[in-house]
Amino acid sequence: MKQPFHEALRKFAFQDGALSDLTTLDCRQTPGFFTKKGETKGKAAGQKRLQRDVERLAKLQELLFANAQAAELRRSVLLVMQGMDTSGKGSTITHVVGSMNPQGVHQVGFKKPTEEELRHDFLWRIRRETPKHGEIGVFDRSHYEDVLIHRVEELTPPSRLERRYGSIRQFEKELVSNGTIVVKVLLHISREEQYERLSKRLDNPEKHWKFTPSDVDAREKWDEYMEAHQLALEETDKPEAPWFVIPADRKWYARLAVQQLLIETLESLELSWPEATFDIEEQRKRLEASR
Amino acid sequence: MKQPFHEALRKFAFQDGALSDLTTLDCRQTPGFFTKKGETKGKAAGQKRLQRDVERLAKLQELLFANAQAAELRRSVLLVMQGMDTSGKGSTITHVVGSMNPQGVHQVGFKKPTEEELRHDFLWRIRRETPKHGEIGVFDRSHYEDVLIHRVEELTPPSRLERRYGSIRQFEKELVSNGTIVVKVLLHISREEQYERLSKRLDNPEKHWKFTPSDVDAREKWDEYMEAHQLALEETDKPEAPWFVIPADRKWYARLAVQQLLIETLESLELSWPEATFDIEEQRKRLEASR
Repeated sequence: MKQPFHEALRKFAFQDGALSDLTTLDCRQTPGFFTKKGETKGKAAGQKRLQRDVERLAKLQELLFANAQAAELRRSVLLVMQGMDTSGKGSTITHVVGSMNPQGVHQVGFKKPTEEELRHDFLWRIRRETPKHGEIGVFDRSHYEDVLIHRVEELTPPSRLERRYGSIRQFEKELVSNGTIVVKVLLHISREEQYERLSKRLDNPEKHWKFTPSDVDAREKWDEYMEAHQLALEETDKPEAPWFVIPADRKWYARLAVQQLLIETLESLELSWPEATFDIEEQRKRLEASR
Repeated sequence: MKQPFHEALRKFAFQDGALSDLTTLDCRQTPGFFTKKGETKGKAAGQKRLQRDVERLAKLQELLFANAQAAELRRSVLLVMQGMDTSGKGSTITHVVGSMNPQGVHQVGFKKPTEEELRHDFLWRIRRETPKHGEIGVFDRSHYEDVLIHRVEELTPPSRLERRYGSIRQFEKELVSNGTIVVKVLLHISREEQYERLSKRLDNPEKHWKFTPSDVDAREKWDEYMEAHQLALEETDKPEAPWFVIPADRKWYARLAVQQLLIETLESLELSWPEATFDIEEQRKRLEASR
């Protein structure tokens, strides 16, 4: 089955299986979204495509849910979203995930851990939120924070940090062997684009609540964060749980890319509508009798 | 502050504070949605209005979330959705709730209670899912099932059923005094419309998974269910936690009505964007320095 966005996005950031230097990637590219002549399609075409495929994604999600419900299919999807502040994780989720039936979507934002969560291993709170069969799980930030901010801010000693990569690989392997398709996405913005977006937040009183001084703290450590991302992706990019680096300086493209990754993922399951588990004629008779 | 849909919907089902006989209400009406001349507006106008107000609702929800986050506002909203099978609870939630940022929405579907839930009082699982400050909670079915199906199917002895109305009133009163606005909605379809919708599900193989023979079981007890609804609404309709009966034979109207109830509810809070909790000029200087 063809997966054009999967393929184009892998090609964008990986060469012969090795991750390119994240800081050298062009965050304004639009992998997979070209005309037949190879020309980049623009914003208008991207938004149109996003809109056009809203129903398609909703239907595919319903197929997954229906098969888990009525045919005991033991499959689920987990979308892990990472990215620096302002990279658009929240708005991408609203635009892409919001069009699906919330009944079959389990969306969680992982913030600073609570006191209780800190008294458990770092995967404890994550495991509790993994999707049920038939569900699409969406993580807005995730267990990767425990090797990103934790590395940069030295919240965890180096030896324990090193062990975490192995724990993550093991955890994701378990998910996959239990029927979950794991799609890991880094919304990758450039340092310049982040400046523009933070600057707009400071200019606009409607956006002040979204700004915290810690956004600038993190920005001042941009290089360290890029290094931590580089390392995290290299250590945890596995065939069963691959990373997709999505160039995210163009918001419309980032949304489209996430939508298409989900569509291609769900289509790979090749699901059809489950057959009735009841006698249709018998139920029709009962229904007519109750008219 | 004007709340035209609130007012029209109350007028639709209540006279001098008393609930009309639910079985006499016309489920094809469109309370609150008229031209200036008093003519009913149709489907096209309704869908246009729904679409037009998507952004408005999303912004109001963001205002609530922002004020809880940055200004410690202790307010939330709880939308309770009830209705017979096929009344459109799920699709209304997808269309109305899906356009808001899932970060600030807590949506829960209450199904048949688990073994563990049954070992607690009936409000135990409900209390755990009430919205945090700044959140909009959405209940797809709710604690009302414990006085609806429980009454009709005699799952609970009569004396205990009677006590539940009081427990519900008390529970909702607590919610309100803790800053939650409680909006209770009954999507009210006619017996004829349910026949049409169930019949379509039987005709369409893509919908078979949504059908269970128990849908017809419940339909065969339509009158008992209407009685149970009548009683539940009468016992729990309070000024602080009122019921809205939404005529739902026209799907587009039901969606619009729920959207407008939410918009009017959020507007009644008269929120403005919270002021910055940091020194804007100082942060601008830091941002410029990190350019």
